Amino acid sequence: MATEIPSSHHDLLTNATVALSTHSSGGSIQTTAVWVLLDGGTLRMSLAKNRQKYRNLVRDPHATIFALDPQNPYRYLEIRATTTLEPDDDKAFVRKVFTAYGSDIDSMPDLLAEERVIVTFSPDRVIAQ
Amino acid sequence: MATEIPSSHHDLLTNATVALSTHSSGGSIQTTAVWVLLDGGTLRMSLAKNRQKYRNLVRDPHATIFALDPQNPYRYLEIRATTTLEPDDDKAFVRKVFTAYGSDIDSMPDLLAEERVIVTFSPDRVIAQ
Repeated sequence: MATEIPSSHHDLLTNATVALSTHSSGGSIQTTAVWVLLDGGTLRMSLAKNRQKYRNLVRDPHATIFALDPQNPYRYLEIRATTTLEPDDDKAFVRKVFTAYGSDIDSMPDLLAEERVIVTFSPDRVIAQ
Repeated sequence: MATEIPSSHHDLLTNATVALSTHSSGGSIQTTAVWVLLDGGTLRMSLAKNRQKYRNLVRDPHATIFALDPQNPYRYLEIRATTTLEPDDDKAFVRKVFTAYGSDIDSMPDLLAEERVIVTFSPDRVIAQ
């Protein structure tokens, strides 16, 4: 079972909005649009602690990232992962994400004021189509 | 809490590939690309019984549909739903789906030979952004 993210599909995680699914309360699945960063082959994401998906990941670390090629619906990447959370107290990581996406975080004081964590995805299974 | 799919976002479910998330075994979430059909306001999907997602839905009927606007990543639709399954023995429903997507199911004998069900999504929560 593949657990590496093949380089053939790295473009789907680069400067792209992908779907993150987490276990929500009551047995439902929450799916939201997120930015991710592929950092030396490791998939990471920045997350504010006041979000529902943060609470979901604290309760259950399973998460799935799904990226669909907007030009070709038969080409996609599914990453089923176990996540770990670590503080981003100096905001260095969220700054890196925003820079990668061409956004200026210094123009968003509300966002810089939030408590944030770094989410690291350890793939349990990767399906690249 | 909204449980209607707003007409402003019907286009994201029409002739579009969307992400379906279900509870897989071992606590992970499976996300795959699917075609759906909005049928008089009711969201449905065709599914072969030999697929992992069929087994997932038999075990746990919670499912989430996520549709991202390929032109605008800030525009999306999330439908957290409870699903019901019913037989599509005469294949009338899967034929309807393929017709809606401009595909000729009669040229796919393998697909017509599969046992299939109709999945109906009853929204528990709809988020349209």
